[in-house]
Amino acid sequence: MIEITSVQNSIVKDIVKLHQKKYREDFIIVEGEKSVFEAIEANMKIKHIFSSNKTLLEKFNAKPGNTKFKDASLNGAEIYLANEKIMEKISTTESAPNILAVVEKPEYDIRTFKNFKRIILLDGIKDAGNLGTIIRTAAAFDIEGIMLFGECTDEFSPKTIRSAAGNIFKVPVVHCREGQLKEFKKSHKMIATVVNSKNHIKNFMPDEPYIVMFGSEACGLCNELLSLSDTSYTIPMKKGVESLNLAISTGIILYELFNH
Amino acid sequence: MIEITSVQNSIVKDIVKLHQKKYREDFIIVEGEKSVFEAIEANMKIKHIFSSNKTLLEKFNAKPGNTKFKDASLNGAEIYLANEKIMEKISTTESAPNILAVVEKPEYDIRTFKNFKRIILLDGIKDAGNLGTIIRTAAAFDIEGIMLFGECTDEFSPKTIRSAAGNIFKVPVVHCREGQLKEFKKSHKMIATVVNSKNHIKNFMPDEPYIVMFGSEACGLCNELLSLSDTSYTIPMKKGVESLNLAISTGIILYELFNH
Repeated sequence: MIEITSVQNSIVKDIVKLHQKKYREDFIIVEGEKSVFEAIEANMKIKHIFSSNKTLLEKFNAKPGNTKFKDASLNGAEIYLANEKIMEKISTTESAPNILAVVEKPEYDIRTFKNFKRIILLDGIKDAGNLGTIIRTAAAFDIEGIMLFGECTDEFSPKTIRSAAGNIFKVPVVHCREGQLKEFKKSHKMIATVVNSKNHIKNFMPDEPYIVMFGSEACGLCNELLSLSDTSYTIPMKKGVESLNLAISTGIILYELFNH
Repeated sequence: MIEITSVQNSIVKDIVKLHQKKYREDFIIVEGEKSVFEAIEANMKIKHIFSSNKTLLEKFNAKPGNTKFKDASLNGAEIYLANEKIMEKISTTESAPNILAVVEKPEYDIRTFKNFKRIILLDGIKDAGNLGTIIRTAAAFDIEGIMLFGECTDEFSPKTIRSAAGNIFKVPVVHCREGQLKEFKKSHKMIATVVNSKNHIKNFMPDEPYIVMFGSEACGLCNELLSLSDTSYTIPMKKGVESLNLAISTGIILYELFNH
């Protein structure tokens, strides 16, 4: 455990850079006990761990065999005891978390998705909170992978990680293009979720590999995706109400698929 | 239409005060076209309307008979043309909305809830975004009223109004105490939503007046409410996943009740 006292420290400065997407090419920030522990349990490669709480940090010196904090996954991680001022500086939230880690950004390969039966696709999702909440919901309802299509919010932004509430590493997220989806269409049923289909989502039979596609907060599904779809489903709601929040629609549909 | 150019104007200063809950005793801020139009359509009493867009403001000079902007509901409302600087000053968001209204705070009476068949109760909800999203979902799935129990986030905070996305005035929200709920228990079935009940929410029969109760983000339902409940239901999910976001759980359950 190394003690850092100056906010001018170069490691501190490097972490602050990670607040901006353009610097998150190789590393990401993971904040709060729940998410840091999740990163460890998911065997993510951890570069730094920062905390102002010595007792909490001492847990990380646990011997091999302590399954809660596998030594192997912390291999090479530098553990820093920092003061409140540094924690405030490196964190992205108004009130600093008690622990923060710098974690190697996971790289998922879309080819591994070929073996997944249960995939969802998000088209142009813009809200980081929505994306994190959807990742959390996907973990709860056993979705194997998430595809992002078009211009989307960063899946590893601090806000997305926070909203995923300890589930960010549980479901792989990949970016995809139209050509790749055409390949998936050969093996997977492509389902569009729309506001005006005659098919009630309750009637969806998830008996074969599928990709359920959700449109963006503002525009719904784009034409390329609509024309790729094999069928479409709707969540019936009260007349005169425009729509549901995207994370809510996704939540309802994933619940239906899981509890079918 | 009155033009305002100085951020030192006393009306501007009074509106800025409304950013803080302690000043929102009589009036609230409603931001964005969707929500302002909703306030008008719901016949809310509007004190001021501010915009930097003259064309948009001119719509409000519509003659009687133009149903989109009923003259009556704007009775007495002062309409101001403001510059960008003022819009930024009075708004609560990073990028100022194109329109902002100061609206008389609605007062709902819990006694009117006696006639409602479909009520939900939120126990100690803390997140303004969650509350707004739940109000929006409640409007979509025909919930007649929302009760808040214990220390809750302000139902008329700008963030809640924003997350309700034009539905804030569609569902009345009241605060309630244990004694009042004991009265409701005589006429309404009290349903607890919990993570460990054996009853699948799919089996809920919404055939009589009910109050479905949801616990807070951090703690679940408090003991007073659990002991008031007649029965409890759960959303089944994958083992090992802790929980869903509160607005997602609420969304799934309201969907089930509506589509039963």
